[in-house]
This record gives sequence, C-alpha cells and structure tokens, in this order.
Amino acid sequence: MNTDTEALFKKILKFRDDRDWAQYHDPKNLSQAISIEAAELQEIFLWKTVAESRNLPAAKIDQIKEELADVFIFMAYLCAEFDIDLLAEVEKKLEKNARRYPIEKSKGRNTKYTEL
Amino acid sequence: MNTDTEALFKKILKFRDDRDWAQYHDPKNLSQAISIEAAELQEIFLWKTVAESRNLPAAKIDQIKEELADVFIFMAYLCAEFDIDLLAEVEKKLEKNARRYPIEKSKGRNTKYTEL
Amino acid sequence: MNTDTEALFKKILKFRDDRDWAQYHDPKNLSQAISIEAAELQEIFLWKTVAESRNLPAAKIDQIKEELADVFIFMAYLCAEFDIDLLAEVEKKLEKNARRYPIEKSKGRNTKYTEL
Amino acid sequence: MNTDTEALFKKILKFRDDRDWAQYHDPKNLSQAISIEAAELQEIFLWKTVAESRNLPAAKIDQIKEELADVFIFMAYLCAEFDIDLLAEVEKKLEKNARRYPIEKSKGRNTKYTEL
Repeated sequence: MNTDTEALFKKILKFRDDRDWAQYHDPKNLSQAISIEAAELQEIFLWKTVAESRNLPAAKIDQIKEELADVFIFMAYLCAEFDIDLLAEVEKKLEKNARRYPIEKSKGRNTKYTEL
Repeated sequence: MNTDTEALFKKILKFRDDRDWAQYHDPKNLSQAISIEAAELQEIFLWKTVAESRNLPAAKIDQIKEELADVFIFMAYLCAEFDIDLLAEVEKKLEKNARRYPIEKSKGRNTKYTEL
Repeated sequence: MNTDTEALFKKILKFRDDRDWAQYHDPKNLSQAISIEAAELQEIFLWKTVAESRNLPAAKIDQIKEELADVFIFMAYLCAEFDIDLLAEVEKKLEKNARRYPIEKSKGRNTKYTEL
Repeated sequence: MNTDTEALFKKILKFRDDRDWAQYHDPKNLSQAISIEAAELQEIFLWKTVAESRNLPAAKIDQIKEELADVFIFMAYLCAEFDIDLLAEVEKKLEKNARRYPIEKSKGRNTKYTEL
C-alpha cells in the first residue's frame, strides 16, 4: 500500500475532464452520489447476520471493493471542488476524535461522545 | 498532499485498538456507519440551490471536511476487515469505468453506462 | 384516496407471515432496508437539474411509485415491531413541527428550527 | 388506527403552504430529505446488536416514531408533486412482490427475487 496519492487524485480528475463531466459534479450532486454508493455498499450486508457479514463469498468482497472505490472517487471530486486535502483532514479528525474519546473513558464502550 | 497513506491507515487502526472498539466494528455495522456519515454530509446541501452549494460559508466547508473524514475513517476499518487496499481498488475501478464509459460515447453526457 | 389503512397494514404483515420472513425483520435490518430503498429513490434524481426532476418521463415516475411503496412497506414492518401507529405519529409530528416553526418566523425561509 | 388518510395528507400540505415552503420542495430535494431522515432512523440502531435493537428504552422508541413521521411527511410532499396515491401504490407493490416471491419458492429464505 504505497500508492502515490497525489497521482491518484490527478488520475481521478483526468478521468472526469476527459469526459467533460465537471458540469454535472456540483457539490450537491456529489454528496448525493456518495450517499447512493454508500447505500449500495450497505445493501451487500442487508438481511445478513453479523457472522455472515464476516464470512462473505469472494464475489461479494469484490462488490465491496467496487462500492468503496465508487465512494472514494466521488469524495475525491468533492474535495477538488473545495480544495480539500482529504488525507490531511482525516489526520485532523483523528486528533479531534482522540480528544472527544479519551481512552480511559471510552475503552470498550460504544457510547457517543455527547453521552460519555 | 503527500501523506504517507500506510502510516495514516495504521494510525486509524491504532485509534480503534487503543479503545478496544474492534468488537463493534463488524462489516455490517461499518457499512451502516459509512452510510450515516454520508447522509450527514448530504444534509449540509439540503434545500440549497446548486449555486448556493458552490458558495458555502467557511463553517459549512469545515463541516464537509469532518464528514468526509468520518466516511474515510469507517471505510478504512472496513478495508482492514477484508484486507482491502483501498487506493489500489480505486485505480482498478477507474480502469473499469474507462471501459464502461469510452470518451467518445460519454463525453458531455450524464447517461449511465447501462443506457449508453 | 380512501384506502382502509388498517386493512392495508394487515395485508403487508400477512405478505410477510405467509413467507415466514419475520425472522429477518429485526428493527436494525428494517432500518437498513428503509435507508437502502430511500437511496434507490434518490438515484432517480441524481445528476438531474431541478427542472428535469420536475419533468420526468412516465417510466421514471413509475419507478418513484415503486420506491416509495418499498419504503412504506418496510416502515410498516418496523411499526409492527414496536406497535407504532404510524399515521397517529405523523399527526403528532406535524403539531411538534408547528411549534418549532411558527408561521411568522419561518414563512418563506429554509432555515432549520435550531437556527431560527 | 382508523385515521382519515385523505385529511392527514391535506394537513401535511397545509402545514407547508402556510409557510410558503413549496418553493424548496422540488422532487430532488425531497428525495434527499427522505434519505437523510432514513439515515437518522438508522443511526438509532448503529453499533447495537440485534437483541439490543429489539429492546430499546422508551426514549429511543420515541425517536423512532419521530424519524418515521419525518420520512412519511417528506414522502407525502413527493407524492403531492407527482399526484401519487401512496397507499394505492403500496397495494400494487404488494401484488407485484407476491408475483416476484411466490410463497413456495421464498418461504423462510432471504434470497432476492433476482436470485430465486
């Protein structure tokens, strides 16, 4: 896992520009697209037990990979729109979460920080 | 944007392991979490016009950054569960999309590949 | 529109019981199903302009009808689980919304009540 | 449960017209709103086991009631836009589902009709 992320984001944007699709990619549409792909990901697990969800056949895991990639690609377009450095934001959010969920208070508990 | 993605994914997993949260993170729950965060992202744009969605105040863009980070973090956990290399899958999906949407057929058209 | 709603809810439950599906219909699964159907509904409008979304071909309106029905059916199962009288709750929510959004403060404004 | 549904739908529309909100309620926005409310419903169950999801405290069931009402209200507005008789469509969809899922083939099985 040593992808050149800058090159990857550029490739994603090039795919779009080659097709002249930026016109459809306003942020509102992109947020919808992300949500729709996330629902397709979720559908793979619908009606399954937790045990079944951990033991999927290879074909289902391939589907998961594609849906995750779809979500990521639309996120990349949304980031481009607002000049967001996604991975830097993930770092920042981890730090914020670490403050919201101090280890001693949250260890082994599925309680939202607002209720901790 | 030259984040060491391998280090970032490790940090995300460490955050969880420090809190003993892997027990809650079965793939079904994670797929739900991704979808819920995606909806929170979408809510930022609800009732807004396309023009408004392109001209958000800074506070709203900060919210977008956080929601995108949340989606990414849950995706990272799901990837860990199935040993998925997210960025490699994005590369593969781009190639698949390029076959589905040949430039000459899809340029400037918002038509799904199944209807091209 | 003078459907006997009590008869309709019974029909929905009978459909399920005839197939012995209550076993899959725990509330968590049902909430997922509702969300997935809502995403399918949303997909009908993806990439469309507001004007296009008001001028859909008949085939798309048929799809909307089916997705709305799907959402409703899963909502009916969730209501059965918790003995919820859906239409009575809608009445109550309208009254709550009327208090949250007094006409004089909210007329012609798309502002959330928390920001009014 | 013997609500006069026609009166209820009228009440829902009157709530909106009193506030002059039809201007925001284009079908695309409404489909987003339905999806966002469905996600809020889902969040009530996030990280919970199936057993926990069946044994919620009263406060959480009150939340479920409100989210279900919210979904219904936005569905009612979407129906008004396209002149859809929601409950009649539910009847039709049940009949279609009955053809897709014949009892003898689907009893006790959580298999999608496309894979039956």
